[in-house]
Amino acid sequence: MARLRVGVAQINAVVGDLDGNAQRVLDAYDAAVREGCELVVFPELVITGYPPEDLLLRPAFVAAAAETLAKVVARTGDAAAVIGFPEQADRLYNAAAVCANGRVLGVYRKHLLPNYAVFDEQRYFTASSEPGPVFDVAGVRVGVTICEDAWEPEPILACVAQGAEVVVNINASPYYAGRLVEREALLATRARQAGVPIVYGNLVGGQDELVFDGGSLVFDGSGNLAARATQFREDLLVVDLDPPAVAPARIEAALDPVPEVYEALVLGTRDYVRKNGFTDVVIALSGGIDSALVAAIAVDALGPEHVNGVLMPSRYSSAGSVDDAVVLAEGLGIRTFTVPIERAHAAFEEMLAPVFEGVGENVAEENVQSRIRGNVLMTISNKFNWLVLTTGNKSEMATGYATLYGDMAGGFAVIKDVPKTLVYALCRDLNARAGRAVIPEAILDKPPSAELRPDQKDTDSLPEYELLDPVIEGYVEGDESVAELVARGFDPELARRVARMVDRNEYKRRQAPPGVRVSHKAFGKDRRPPITNRWPG
Amino acid sequence: MARLRVGVAQINAVVGDLDGNAQRVLDAYDAAVREGCELVVFPELVITGYPPEDLLLRPAFVAAAAETLAKVVARTGDAAAVIGFPEQADRLYNAAAVCANGRVLGVYRKHLLPNYAVFDEQRYFTASSEPGPVFDVAGVRVGVTICEDAWEPEPILACVAQGAEVVVNINASPYYAGRLVEREALLATRARQAGVPIVYGNLVGGQDELVFDGGSLVFDGSGNLAARATQFREDLLVVDLDPPAVAPARIEAALDPVPEVYEALVLGTRDYVRKNGFTDVVIALSGGIDSALVAAIAVDALGPEHVNGVLMPSRYSSAGSVDDAVVLAEGLGIRTFTVPIERAHAAFEEMLAPVFEGVGENVAEENVQSRIRGNVLMTISNKFNWLVLTTGNKSEMATGYATLYGDMAGGFAVIKDVPKTLVYALCRDLNARAGRAVIPEAILDKPPSAELRPDQKDTDSLPEYELLDPVIEGYVEGDESVAELVARGFDPELARRVARMVDRNEYKRRQAPPGVRVSHKAFGKDRRPPITNRWPG
Repeated sequence: MARLRVGVAQINAVVGDLDGNAQRVLDAYDAAVREGCELVVFPELVITGYPPEDLLLRPAFVAAAAETLAKVVARTGDAAAVIGFPEQADRLYNAAAVCANGRVLGVYRKHLLPNYAVFDEQRYFTASSEPGPVFDVAGVRVGVTICEDAWEPEPILACVAQGAEVVVNINASPYYAGRLVEREALLATRARQAGVPIVYGNLVGGQDELVFDGGSLVFDGSGNLAARATQFREDLLVVDLDPPAVAPARIEAALDPVPEVYEALVLGTRDYVRKNGFTDVVIALSGGIDSALVAAIAVDALGPEHVNGVLMPSRYSSAGSVDDAVVLAEGLGIRTFTVPIERAHAAFEEMLAPVFEGVGENVAEENVQSRIRGNVLMTISNKFNWLVLTTGNKSEMATGYATLYGDMAGGFAVIKDVPKTLVYALCRDLNARAGRAVIPEAILDKPPSAELRPDQKDTDSLPEYELLDPVIEGYVEGDESVAELVARGFDPELARRVARMVDRNEYKRRQAPPGVRVSHKAFGKDRRPPITNRWPG
Repeated sequence: MARLRVGVAQINAVVGDLDGNAQRVLDAYDAAVREGCELVVFPELVITGYPPEDLLLRPAFVAAAAETLAKVVARTGDAAAVIGFPEQADRLYNAAAVCANGRVLGVYRKHLLPNYAVFDEQRYFTASSEPGPVFDVAGVRVGVTICEDAWEPEPILACVAQGAEVVVNINASPYYAGRLVEREALLATRARQAGVPIVYGNLVGGQDELVFDGGSLVFDGSGNLAARATQFREDLLVVDLDPPAVAPARIEAALDPVPEVYEALVLGTRDYVRKNGFTDVVIALSGGIDSALVAAIAVDALGPEHVNGVLMPSRYSSAGSVDDAVVLAEGLGIRTFTVPIERAHAAFEEMLAPVFEGVGENVAEENVQSRIRGNVLMTISNKFNWLVLTTGNKSEMATGYATLYGDMAGGFAVIKDVPKTLVYALCRDLNARAGRAVIPEAILDKPPSAELRPDQKDTDSLPEYELLDPVIEGYVEGDESVAELVARGFDPELARRVARMVDRNEYKRRQAPPGVRVSHKAFGKDRRPPITNRWPG
C-alpha cells in the first residue's frame, strides 16, 4: 500500500498575473485533492510566473507576490503544497513554501542560482547554503529543492542527510531540443545516488523567447523512470510513493525529436499571442517554405480563423510563388489578402531617383521592396490589431540574410531559432503526420529565393544550406573559432565567411522580434555578444 | 621628494580588438615612461575592451587575450604596469596583471563581481576571495583592486592589511549623470578608511550603449582629491606619491551637469559610428527639437562633412518645419537632401484601400507615413553606407510615442535615454555655450508635433512633458509603483496611464537600436522587464 500520493501540477502560469496564477494554483490543488493527493507540487516561482526578470527589482511587485502566496496558503487544507515564490527576507530568495491547513510549514531557499545561457538569477536572488527543512507529509519525510539544485549532487544529498525519504524538485526549466533526454539521464543518476524517489515538477507554457515544456517526471529510488507527464500541455501527474519505491504510474510517450520542436513552436507562438492579448495574427505569404511553416504553426496554435495571410507580389514575383501561397492558404483554411506592391515600389524609385542619380545599384534596391512589404503588413496590423508573425529562420538570422524593418518587421519571430535544414525537416514531418501535403510539394521542391531581383536565388548570396547550417551550429551554438572549425574539416573560406556574416549582423538581430528558443543557444536572451566587436572569430 | 611617480593611462580600448588594444597599451606605457613614471595603470579588461560580453564564452577568444597580454608584458621595462585581462585558470577571473621587465610579477583577481544594472560579470567570471598580492614598485608597496572592489571596504582594507602603502583600483566604470560625484565621495571615504592613497584609473570611450567617462582620480591617504583626469577623452594623468601624501597635481575641472551629458552623447555617438566602421551618418530632419539636437551632437562627434540630413515633408508638414530644418542644417554646415513622401503616401493609400474599405481611420494612417520615412532613410543608408541616427527621446521611448520601423528605424538612437525636458535643457545650454542659436529659437519655441495628421500636437496623446517626465523617472528609474507615485503626490490617473504606457510598449523598446546610456536606469541593457507581463505596475 502506498504511503504517499503526490500530484505534480504542471500548470501554465503567466508572468506578472499574480491573481491569475493564484487561481491556477488553487484550481490544480483542488483537482489534485479530488484525486486523493496528499502532496501537490507546483512549479518554481509559480506565483510570479517565470522568469519575472526586472519585475523582481520592483519592491511593490515582490510585496504583492508575498500577499498572493498568503492568500493561496490560507486556502490549503490537509494536503500539503509546495509552491515556488520570491521570498523577501534579509535578501531576496528564489524559494519554495511548503504549506498545509492554512499555514506555511517551512520555506526552502534555492542553493544554486543559474546565471548562464538564458538565466540571470544572480541578478535578483541570493543563494542559500542552508540545508532545506525536511517536512513530514502524511508520515513521509519530504525534502524540497529547486531546479538547478538537481544539477549538482549536493542539495539533494543534503535533503537525504536530513532524513528525506523523497525529494521534490520544482522547476521552471525551459525547452531546447534534446532537453528531456538530458533531464532524464541526470535525474536517474541523482535518484540512484540519493536512493530516494525524486519528484520533478516542471512549468509549462511560453514566455517571450522561452517555452517551458512540462514533461514532469518521477524517478524511483533506484533511478528508474516511474512517471512522465505530457509535454507542452498542462497536466496533473498523480503518483503513489512507497519510498524508495514508486507504484506503476502513467508514463506519457516522449515526442520524437522533430515533432517535439514543432510542438514547442506551436506552444511558444500560442502563448506569446494570447498572453499579450491578441486574438489574430497576420503573416506575409511569399510562396516560400518559411512562411508556409509559420502559417501552419499559427493554424495549429490559434485555429485557422485567427490566421490571416497577406500576399504582396512585386514585379519580380514568379507566378508560381503566388499560386503556391494560394494553395497553401486554401489547404490551411486561412483568409488571405493580396496587396501588390508595384505602386509603392514605383513611387520610391521616383522619389529617390534624384538622390541616387549616377550611383550604381546595390542592396538598397532590394531592401526597399522588403521594407514596403513590412510597411504594408504593419499597417494592416495597426488597422486590425493583428500581431505580425515574421518568417525568418535561424540560418537567415545568423547570416543577416534578411531586411531590417522589411521581412524582419513584426511582433514574433516564430522560427528564428530554426535552421533552414530543420525548416525542411519540420515541413516534411508535418506532411507525413498529416498524411497530406499541408505544405504543398511545390513549396518543398523549389530552390529558396527572396525574389527581390530577377531570377534571384538564396545561393547567390549564401552557401548551400546543407553546408551553411553545420558551420553556424559550430560557430554559434558551439562557440567554436574559425580555426577550430577548419580543424574539424570545414572549408577555411566558408568558415571565415560565415563567422564574418554572423558577427557583422549582430546589430540586425538586436532589433529582431522575440521568437521561440528551440536550441541550446538561441539568438536573443541566450547569446549576448557585443555589437561593436572587432574580434574576427 | 616623491617616492613613486604613477601614470594613469586613461585609454580608449575597443572590444575584441586585441592587437589594437595591445598597441594602445604600449603607446601609453611608452608615453608614461617618457614622463618618468615608475608605475603605469591601465583600465579593467583593457586587453579585451569592456564589456566583452559573450566573447568571453569563446575559448579561442580568451586564449588569444592571454597571448596578447604576454606580448604586452614582454615589452615592459623597469616601469611596472597594471593591466586588466581575463585570466583563465581553474575558472575564468576578471584579473589584473602586475608586470615589469618582461615578467608578470603577480595577478590580482577581482573580489566583487557586479551583476546588476548593466553588469553581468557573474555570467562569466568567478569571484576570488583571496587577498591580492602586494607588489614592491620602486620601493613602495602597491596593492591592486578592480572596480567594484572599491564599493565595499573589504578588498582595499585587505590590501592595506597586507602592507600596501598605496592601492590601485582599475576600472571600466560606465557613465551616468552624477556618477563622478558619487565616485569621488566613495573614494574619499575609502582612502580615509584605508589611510593610503587610492589611484583610480578609468576606461574612456563608447561601447554600444555604454560610455566610459574617464575622469580618473587620485586621492591621498587623508581622503583629499589630489588629481583628476579629463572626462570623455583619453588622457595620461601623472602623479607623484609620497604615501600617504600625494604631491600637488593636475585637477581637471569637472563638467557641469548638462554639458557633461552632452559630452557623453557626443563620445558615445562618435565611438559607435567609428568603431563600427562608418564614416558618415544620416539623420531625418523634421524641424523638431529632437532631430536638431541629434544633428548637433553628430556634428560635434564626426564633423559637419560627415553628417547628412534628409528632409521628408508630407502633406501634413508645416512650411515652418521645413524652413526650420533648413536653417538648422545651414547653421550646422551639413548637407541635406529633400525627399517629399507624398508619392509613396498616396501609393500606400491606394494599395490598402481595398483592404481597409469600410474600416475607420486609426493610428495605422499615421504610422504608414512614419514607416515610409523610415524606408527612405534606410534606403539612403544602404545606398551610401551611412549609419542612420534615430532621434527619439526617452519620454517617447517610455510611452511608446514612436513608430516601430518608422522614426525608430536606424542604427543608433543617440538620445533615447534623454527625457524631453532634458532635450530642451541640452539645446539651451548648447546655444548658451556657443553664444549663438546653434538650435534655432523657432525650434525651441514651437510646441512638439509628429505632424502625422493636421494640427497634431504631442499633447493630443501625451501629458505635458513637464508632468510626464517626473512620472517616468519615478516609475522607470525609481522602480516605484503606481501606489507609491500617488503617495508622492502624482495624479492617480496620470500615474496609472504612464505606467500602462511604459509597460505596454516594452515590445517596441526591444526592437529599438542601441543608444547612449546617460541615466542610472536606461532602457535596454540596463532595464530588463518581460514583454509578456500582466503586472499592472
